[in-house]
Amino acid sequence: MDNRFQKTRNDFPILNQKVNDESLVYLDNAATSQKPNQVIDELVRFYRNDNANVHRSVHTLGERATEEYETARQKVQKFINAKDTREVIFTKGTTDSLNLVASTYGAENITASDEIVISIMEHHSNLIPWQQLAIKKGATLKYIGLTADGQLDMEDAQSKITDKTKIVAIAHVSNVLGVTNDIKKIAQIAHSHNAVIVVDGAQAVPHMKVDVQDLKVDFYAFSGHKMLGPMGIGVLYGKTALLNKMSPYQYGGEMIDFVEKDFSTWTELPWKFEAGTQNVAGAIGLGRAIDYLTTIGMDNIAKYETELVSYLLPRLLRIDSIEVYGPHDVGIHNGVVSFNIKGLHPHDVATALDMDGVAVRAGHHCAQPLMKYLGVVATVRASFYFYNSKADADKLLQAIAETKEFFNV
Amino acid sequence: MDNRFQKTRNDFPILNQKVNDESLVYLDNAATSQKPNQVIDELVRFYRNDNANVHRSVHTLGERATEEYETARQKVQKFINAKDTREVIFTKGTTDSLNLVASTYGAENITASDEIVISIMEHHSNLIPWQQLAIKKGATLKYIGLTADGQLDMEDAQSKITDKTKIVAIAHVSNVLGVTNDIKKIAQIAHSHNAVIVVDGAQAVPHMKVDVQDLKVDFYAFSGHKMLGPMGIGVLYGKTALLNKMSPYQYGGEMIDFVEKDFSTWTELPWKFEAGTQNVAGAIGLGRAIDYLTTIGMDNIAKYETELVSYLLPRLLRIDSIEVYGPHDVGIHNGVVSFNIKGLHPHDVATALDMDGVAVRAGHHCAQPLMKYLGVVATVRASFYFYNSKADADKLLQAIAETKEFFNV
Repeated sequence: MDNRFQKTRNDFPILNQKVNDESLVYLDNAATSQKPNQVIDELVRFYRNDNANVHRSVHTLGERATEEYETARQKVQKFINAKDTREVIFTKGTTDSLNLVASTYGAENITASDEIVISIMEHHSNLIPWQQLAIKKGATLKYIGLTADGQLDMEDAQSKITDKTKIVAIAHVSNVLGVTNDIKKIAQIAHSHNAVIVVDGAQAVPHMKVDVQDLKVDFYAFSGHKMLGPMGIGVLYGKTALLNKMSPYQYGGEMIDFVEKDFSTWTELPWKFEAGTQNVAGAIGLGRAIDYLTTIGMDNIAKYETELVSYLLPRLLRIDSIEVYGPHDVGIHNGVVSFNIKGLHPHDVATALDMDGVAVRAGHHCAQPLMKYLGVVATVRASFYFYNSKADADKLLQAIAETKEFFNV
Repeated sequence: MDNRFQKTRNDFPILNQKVNDESLVYLDNAATSQKPNQVIDELVRFYRNDNANVHRSVHTLGERATEEYETARQKVQKFINAKDTREVIFTKGTTDSLNLVASTYGAENITASDEIVISIMEHHSNLIPWQQLAIKKGATLKYIGLTADGQLDMEDAQSKITDKTKIVAIAHVSNVLGVTNDIKKIAQIAHSHNAVIVVDGAQAVPHMKVDVQDLKVDFYAFSGHKMLGPMGIGVLYGKTALLNKMSPYQYGGEMIDFVEKDFSTWTELPWKFEAGTQNVAGAIGLGRAIDYLTTIGMDNIAKYETELVSYLLPRLLRIDSIEVYGPHDVGIHNGVVSFNIKGLHPHDVATALDMDGVAVRAGHHCAQPLMKYLGVVATVRASFYFYNSKADADKLLQAIAETKEFFNV
């Protein structure tokens, strides 16, 4: 196993602490990632030296802040290989990005005869905006189902996406099942029916190389806080031609050309979608996080996380009375592992694991329709990042064993 | 003049720097405030020790983060004297808060026969959302004008607000004119006609004691970054009865009760309006900023800023070829001073002042209709906060003198 990842742990002060007298093992990375000193220091540097509001400013701090903010945008552009910085809109996070698309492109293009296709594995943030849009417009919402082992059913995708489909909205990586969807293929299907594809990339961008041009997606949303960045910052990637045709999502400062008493005109991309004072420090912190991830290399991260799950999954499956959701084949599995211990409520399991210092999440993971589909109310979820180790997986396995013993199951 | 404010300067490391070889004099506080070490340190503490996603988490970090986030909400509640924490919604900032109200309460309550009343001094963030809502609904948008000296014309308010009015949206403090509007009185007028009042408090909350119950406002919006807090966090205060009737603004995680394939139900206040991962660190940082401001005392801050402007304004008015916008009477003036030097473009003035280390803003200040009303395209704006001093005012006056000499006006 690659040793360089063990060294990264020193960059994350939070990991070096005791929880309930045990060394913390943080396995809740699908909820949010921890922040390296480099990102924390960048926030401190900005607030101590350059803090100012951006744009329209002619004083030195304002110019510095503006330059750093737009440099962060360039970093994002390069990181996801967008064609142009105009395609990179800073938002509050993935949820904000997806609501933006549903409220503008969606509201302006969906009529009662149209269909929107999503999947049953969607997080609520890529489900409810489309559900409510469909209700509002009288349009039809269709769900792509799963194969028996918990992958997206591509045959079902082929049949659900038709000429009636105007929007296909799909997660790149499930936040529950540990599967990566073939976005390139779904984009191809969507485009063959003249539909646009919107991708929830919250669980993908932190863990693998994402190239929006290669994927040929129309919109792609992700969050900073799941990829080492600060909270309160996210990104919406959108194709220039689409973004240009869309109305603004929010109205306020910096997104206008002219404001008269009875009408207004909008400024150009990307600022048309960035009303009001933005989270400048957040964007700059995200830029620093991208530098950090780039130095490690996204392919290396993906490979290492596969190694971790290849270690954990077979051992987990060997435990009596454990049920694992999603594929059991490590060859198609990423670093998110959902499971239950038969006879125990997942919240009790997570509480017991926490007593051993192991932080996992328990609940419906903002995916209630998926839970229903899987026939459960909730699961336990352990999710890796590159700063985790085989030792963390061992600690989880040991804590599970102790939990089973304690509850006598 | 109160000496305690000079000591606060040491808490703001950014102020202790040279810009263009001159000591920085930061007078762009209406755009954004600087952050004291206490707030910066709080962000570092959170990210180094307690960072986690909030709610639905049973592990220790998640519980700590949740508790700190909800404690920050209590601090906000107490700071503005809201009746209940359910009335305090965390947003991205003032613009986000105002768009939320326009897109939910506004969209759900305004019809073609209704009127919305705003004022000609509104910032674009409290103007365009209502303008676009009026356009969309075919409703009428009315503007309250100003008195000859640049105050809100209360007689005009009395005549513009009628039984046809459904929403009155007004800034508490102008970001250009240095005036504080009588919100209590306007709320009374609005309520006498069964209209609701929405207040843009971005320039008020950082500088004076605001009591939403005493003001009897229905909605009140403000930003963290203008009051020592981090960027990317803001607040919408709303009365429980109104918020309960409103639809959610964004859809996603944490704002639901149940999600079925074809419908969803929403959780209770305030979380119904907080979809997706929130800026937890931002909220906690804002809480620390509130602690800091409370220790100084908001009345002390307001009094001190009045002293500063009482020193600056008469001296500014004495300078040949200076035009000051807004009242010239220091008795009704707060710490925002807008002016022009005849014959010079405000951008050139701001650039020249920056050469002397003085940071001011030049432009339309996101208030184009006000600029047109005043008969100018732009102004220079100097805006104080409590860490400024008489020496800063002197430096501004001196830099203006040098600028006039340089340009020979």
